[in-house]
Amino acid sequence: MGELPAKVSIREVGPRDGLQNEDPVPTGAKIKLLDALSATGVGRIEAVSFVHPKAIPQMADADEVWAGATPADGVRYSALVPNSRGARRALAAGFTEVEVVVSASDTHNRRNVNRSTAESLDDIAGLIALLHDAGATAEVIVATSFGCPYEGDVDPARVAGIVDRVLADGADRIAFGDTTGMGTPRRVRELVSAVRERQPDAPLLLHFHNTRGTALANLLTALELGVTEFDASVGGLGGCPYAPGASGNVATEEVVHMLHDMGVDTGIDLDRLIEVAEYAEEIVGRQLPSGVLRAGPRTRLG
Amino acid sequence: MGELPAKVSIREVGPRDGLQNEDPVPTGAKIKLLDALSATGVGRIEAVSFVHPKAIPQMADADEVWAGATPADGVRYSALVPNSRGARRALAAGFTEVEVVVSASDTHNRRNVNRSTAESLDDIAGLIALLHDAGATAEVIVATSFGCPYEGDVDPARVAGIVDRVLADGADRIAFGDTTGMGTPRRVRELVSAVRERQPDAPLLLHFHNTRGTALANLLTALELGVTEFDASVGGLGGCPYAPGASGNVATEEVVHMLHDMGVDTGIDLDRLIEVAEYAEEIVGRQLPSGVLRAGPRTRLG
Repeated sequence: MGELPAKVSIREVGPRDGLQNEDPVPTGAKIKLLDALSATGVGRIEAVSFVHPKAIPQMADADEVWAGATPADGVRYSALVPNSRGARRALAAGFTEVEVVVSASDTHNRRNVNRSTAESLDDIAGLIALLHDAGATAEVIVATSFGCPYEGDVDPARVAGIVDRVLADGADRIAFGDTTGMGTPRRVRELVSAVRERQPDAPLLLHFHNTRGTALANLLTALELGVTEFDASVGGLGGCPYAPGASGNVATEEVVHMLHDMGVDTGIDLDRLIEVAEYAEEIVGRQLPSGVLRAGPRTRLG
Repeated sequence: MGELPAKVSIREVGPRDGLQNEDPVPTGAKIKLLDALSATGVGRIEAVSFVHPKAIPQMADADEVWAGATPADGVRYSALVPNSRGARRALAAGFTEVEVVVSASDTHNRRNVNRSTAESLDDIAGLIALLHDAGATAEVIVATSFGCPYEGDVDPARVAGIVDRVLADGADRIAFGDTTGMGTPRRVRELVSAVRERQPDAPLLLHFHNTRGTALANLLTALELGVTEFDASVGGLGGCPYAPGASGNVATEEVVHMLHDMGVDTGIDLDRLIEVAEYAEEIVGRQLPSGVLRAGPRTRLG
């Protein structure tokens, strides 16, 4: 085990990526979830996405949710947008950190947005310019970075090429999504190495799914490689890892629990976070796939 | 990430540790499970335990199960025993590899067998002698090695002291059980280092539970420390990690899936193992907590 970073930055994605992949919940519950997360000590929250309500009814009330929430000092909030219309809505709502998505795999990108990866990258160049003109930052999320459910392995060199392209177009940050949980420690190592070789200073964030149980092993590997930014979803909101087709976000409290026991600071109050996970479970009305939510932290004695 | 071993030895514990912690299943199903596992390429199987049928009704048919099974060439089979009566039954049944258990935590040991750890270690010295006299090997499983649900942290020096003692008494192998899933990569590193410092050549086997999501991260850490022997339970038999009080064995197919993708050989045919996990799910009649069983390996495309 190499030297571990003393501190990592967790971005809580439950309110957006999580709830977008659950049955719709009431606007008031979304606001309450967001505000509860803001009080956990987490530094970053993906709050909403500005997508077409017909495509994703779960996010149809994004404006109301954000208007009703009470942003906390010291917390950075971001929104995801699919296109310039969404970007304008995010900017109008006051967001200064905006995310856009492209799939590393052509087939996955076509199935999602009916365009090739290259076509989406051209669109993204325009979106980055639009966001920068308005004074916002642009993060590019590269989906299927660790494998594609249609194509299989995705060449890390292809992902690194996408990183080169979007950085040249002005992207402020890059996130790598393990969209269907195909990541393993080997894939993490290969991808981070391939990107770092060409872009040693690019800010990288990793987004793991626990679909095949590897999320924390992947995160540990990334930590050992010096990566310090990770997405996670409270309670594992966003689909059960044990159900077919589920997204299977790694649960924030499982990430925080492991990191804290290893002496890696997250700034997050784990007990408070577990209370929020209990609330998340309540609003989606099903048992969430989080061991730390069920069993409590290892420090909880019987 | 350090150099990884080229090959590891998995001991499949589903038939014993797994089924012992599930509702009872018919004898015929146990035999079929055992024989199916024998055909996966796994090198070792914990087959049964010889315990009092009133204490553990799930294992009351241990003699019938073992008599009905068809041991495969090249597979090592073991049995767990609580005392000399169980040891004699195991020997009479023809086992040449036998396991005994002690908890590193006094409180846990007392709650299990109403004796202190030291008292149990005295008993174990006698059991080792009994087994050796009959030409069998004796493995000592040290439960609560990574933490106790009643006492909390367990000092690695205490566990290392137990290792010293049982090796002096002739134990052939040591296994460390993460009985309630309190292990993290840090705890694994501390324990393996503490033991290795005093007993550099002792054969160590690690047994992880996924109660808090850390099982594969723990296993990765152990691999990096050069540990090459691990327990795992097909389908995660032995209690759901998301249910209170569950044992939460890590699923063999999740272990094998990650190891194979990292280029670490196990000798196991993953597709065949997943079929056995499907059968395991069928005989216990509930959804088992295995992501690879649900989603398939990362190489399975949509």
